[in-house]
Amino acid sequence: MSDLKHKILHLVQNDLDKIEVALKENLNPHIDIVSKIASHILFSGGKRLRPLLMVLSSRICDYDSNDYHTLSVIFEYLHAATLLHDDLVDEASLRRGQPVANLIWDNPTAVLAGDFLLARSLSIAAQTNRPDVIKTVAQITEYMSQGEIYQLMRRGSLDLDEEEYMEIIKCKTAVLFQGACRVGALIADTSYKKEEELSKYGFNLGIAFQMADDLLDYTLNTTTLGKEVGADLKEGKLTLPVIYSLKAAGARDRSQMQQIITNKAFSLKDFKLLIHMIHKHGGQKYTQDQAAIYVRNAKEALKIFKDSKTKQALLMLADYALVRKA
Amino acid sequence: MSDLKHKILHLVQNDLDKIEVALKENLNPHIDIVSKIASHILFSGGKRLRPLLMVLSSRICDYDSNDYHTLSVIFEYLHAATLLHDDLVDEASLRRGQPVANLIWDNPTAVLAGDFLLARSLSIAAQTNRPDVIKTVAQITEYMSQGEIYQLMRRGSLDLDEEEYMEIIKCKTAVLFQGACRVGALIADTSYKKEEELSKYGFNLGIAFQMADDLLDYTLNTTTLGKEVGADLKEGKLTLPVIYSLKAAGARDRSQMQQIITNKAFSLKDFKLLIHMIHKHGGQKYTQDQAAIYVRNAKEALKIFKDSKTKQALLMLADYALVRKA
Repeated sequence: MSDLKHKILHLVQNDLDKIEVALKENLNPHIDIVSKIASHILFSGGKRLRPLLMVLSSRICDYDSNDYHTLSVIFEYLHAATLLHDDLVDEASLRRGQPVANLIWDNPTAVLAGDFLLARSLSIAAQTNRPDVIKTVAQITEYMSQGEIYQLMRRGSLDLDEEEYMEIIKCKTAVLFQGACRVGALIADTSYKKEEELSKYGFNLGIAFQMADDLLDYTLNTTTLGKEVGADLKEGKLTLPVIYSLKAAGARDRSQMQQIITNKAFSLKDFKLLIHMIHKHGGQKYTQDQAAIYVRNAKEALKIFKDSKTKQALLMLADYALVRKA
Repeated sequence: MSDLKHKILHLVQNDLDKIEVALKENLNPHIDIVSKIASHILFSGGKRLRPLLMVLSSRICDYDSNDYHTLSVIFEYLHAATLLHDDLVDEASLRRGQPVANLIWDNPTAVLAGDFLLARSLSIAAQTNRPDVIKTVAQITEYMSQGEIYQLMRRGSLDLDEEEYMEIIKCKTAVLFQGACRVGALIADTSYKKEEELSKYGFNLGIAFQMADDLLDYTLNTTTLGKEVGADLKEGKLTLPVIYSLKAAGARDRSQMQQIITNKAFSLKDFKLLIHMIHKHGGQKYTQDQAAIYVRNAKEALKIFKDSKTKQALLMLADYALVRKA
């Protein structure tokens, strides 16, 4: 385990334990099978980053409560619901190193279990009796579904540009991170300024996190990643490393890259060549640099808060987005 | 058009027109394709019964407002979202006489468009700033997804009993009708007693409506129905007419019925024989009688309200559940 990860865990282990308990206790389905499917996706080794962001955002606003871990599960349930629907979309066969739910059960069952988790998130949000919290959660789901649809519609398109990529990852990932932080601030009844800065932190972290995730897809270490080699590419998803490199490359290299990208049955050798091209034309460095900028912005947003263990944890989480290997 | 339908339309045409406008105005997707898919399912000739129930429930509590038609779209969006996910589940090829969305687009797109409609419903609910309204809407979605999953898990099971059937149609249909009526009462800030009675009306109407719907599947008139002959049966869904008849029949007839039911490639002749059996063993009459009891209960619940055009419309809608042909 990296030193940074170790330090973070030291600061948040207690929260992670409470989040784990809350995830189990709040599932609450009337029907056994729902519990089984939801558990399959929920308890297969997620990082619980999103609920953790909510809890830390609350605490940095001097809010401490016994029930915010309960509320935080909203953001893991939402995430899990998207994974269930996304696996169907992606026709992926591995997720976190395990077969995806729609290969164990069938597509419809996985879809309905996703619906249940979505509904459960919104019910838990509704229990707060706070329209601002509920609105935030409802809007997250609107953005996420639209981001996924946009990505799906542009699947396989070689002309997807950076602007479109940014729009997709904003909807798909950043809005959820942002929402988790915002809800943390809202339940702490903090100032509007602090709410905005925490939201900014979450949004920028989300963007950086997704960029780093997209870079990881162009490594060959499938053990730590728990998914197939070149999974994004096989699903026709163009991400920043490729988008940038395609644009930067000359006609010959571009054509070669395009051939690999459009051939869904690309070999490991092809894939290695593509990774080489991404390095050669700066796609890897550009993505890393961009992610670093967003991490810097995220950390900047925390300036308003005085130093504390909670602030340290949030700062380290931002750094971790850049260096994580899985 | 039947005389009853004509009378109802005369009373509610103005509301239906306003609901139609609100359905278009509130879709509000950021991405074109979302609007296209959602429109395909939303504007292919639905009855708008659920939003209408909300509006009439408000009005019978003496609430009149310019914006309740907007709020009422929640219940049509929720309904449409379920249809989009349900079509995937059902592998049906026709819905309201048109090809289902997942045959025009693909499964993932239809699922994501359903997610968007679900999220949109909850956003509109959140805009009311009323936790009671939002909770009701969130709970509806929880019940619906669980009802669908339960139905799916028991698909093809010949031993599904009446109690399980009731549980399924409660979750799938009645809770949405009930919720529409309850939200109508809630925004009217009426008495708890009136809220409860309207909810009872909605719940009972929903049950009756679903029973009548399930009976319609055992008619041969696919033109008015807009779906395939024996669609429920092909999807392995046992409904009350069949459940009752299987239980009432002697060993020989039961065995013959079971053979038809388990053979998904049953012929029209087989299906006609099954309909004959359902008549012979009382499944049709029993379902009709049960639906009539729920309609009576629904109408009973309105006793608390003084006579008005709105009350007339709600009473007639209850009667219509029994006689409708599509």
